[in-house]
Amino acid sequence: MAGPLALGILVSGRGSNMEAVLDAIGAGQLDAEVRVVLSDVESAPALRTALSRGVPALHIPTGKYRTRLSDEAEKEWVRVLREHGVEVIALAGFMRMIHETILSAFAGRIVNIHPALLPAFPGLHGQRQALDYGAKVAGCTVHFVNEGMDTGPIIGQRVVRVEADDTEQSLSARILEQEHELYPECLQLLAEGRLRIDGRRVRILSAQDALRKECNDPSG
Amino acid sequence: MAGPLALGILVSGRGSNMEAVLDAIGAGQLDAEVRVVLSDVESAPALRTALSRGVPALHIPTGKYRTRLSDEAEKEWVRVLREHGVEVIALAGFMRMIHETILSAFAGRIVNIHPALLPAFPGLHGQRQALDYGAKVAGCTVHFVNEGMDTGPIIGQRVVRVEADDTEQSLSARILEQEHELYPECLQLLAEGRLRIDGRRVRILSAQDALRKECNDPSG
Repeated sequence: MAGPLALGILVSGRGSNMEAVLDAIGAGQLDAEVRVVLSDVESAPALRTALSRGVPALHIPTGKYRTRLSDEAEKEWVRVLREHGVEVIALAGFMRMIHETILSAFAGRIVNIHPALLPAFPGLHGQRQALDYGAKVAGCTVHFVNEGMDTGPIIGQRVVRVEADDTEQSLSARILEQEHELYPECLQLLAEGRLRIDGRRVRILSAQDALRKECNDPSG
Repeated sequence: MAGPLALGILVSGRGSNMEAVLDAIGAGQLDAEVRVVLSDVESAPALRTALSRGVPALHIPTGKYRTRLSDEAEKEWVRVLREHGVEVIALAGFMRMIHETILSAFAGRIVNIHPALLPAFPGLHGQRQALDYGAKVAGCTVHFVNEGMDTGPIIGQRVVRVEADDTEQSLSARILEQEHELYPECLQLLAEGRLRIDGRRVRILSAQDALRKECNDPSG
């Protein structure tokens, strides 16, 4: 790819992972540019944060469903993402399932971060699920998004020990620290063209192999 | 508890975790005694290994099912375990589900080790399941046994990174190293009376708290 990775970030709330991505870009650790931040929630604090950091940020209507965007809405989201030149979509606490229209428009170019060691504890409140189950380890997962709920090919995972006195809050906070490191790290691999999806497995090429691949296949 | 933990180990194959337990006892790291090793498979190498180390080891008929013991067989297994003074059953590669008769005779006193980070990848070939899924972390879990398939309360977990060039064999070998440390460690907590099952969570008491509990409740 030429130039920094053109990211669109989808948020529903605070957007702390969005901030971590912006921080990593600012620190020169992630060769990317956040072209636009979109939210399904008009009052999402992440929109204000993005704007205050000079990133275009919009609320776009979602249609009539609560857990997904309507097909019509997905078309509009795709239009806005393309209008801003977005190559890769990063979900950062986006609380709706992504469906066919966006999935096919950005095939293999949508990633998500989830606060659990997938495939354990998908869906809402991964941290609480881990605590309630009595797991002794927890963590977070960055993965490509497919049509399932947190079921796409895994790019990276970080582990956190569950402590005897952990509450949902304390465990979530420790996992979040790891999320904030893992997400930029995985996006940087994507920016360097070093990820290959091979069935369910994501292979991480060496920087050299990625470069060689790019030279043999300039279309990317 | 007075004296070393009286263990009965159930095996179906090689029994490498059985050996790790015997080694830990020999090294003074685990305050237990293996009273008897039982196998559902007459040719299990673990039986010979146990005998060669001076531990009583028996094949006991299983009844007509392939994936469990018959109720009649479970009664006979319980009888033999009791005859040898077994307090706690440790499964070590035992390939049958434990049912009502044994579960109720040794309620809360049956443990198992599984080569995956439960609740991910229960059942057969946990390591291969993790590889096929494309997980970036794998590991092992020691848990109390309940009526489900690898669903009981978790005592301890160890994590292993999945490497890019891992095969089922290489990953299994690295997980096995962790199993051989984790199982004796968890059994030692049991021997010290430091585990409390609290719903789905297993609390690990400090050595001091465990002692205090024992003094207040000498039966216990």
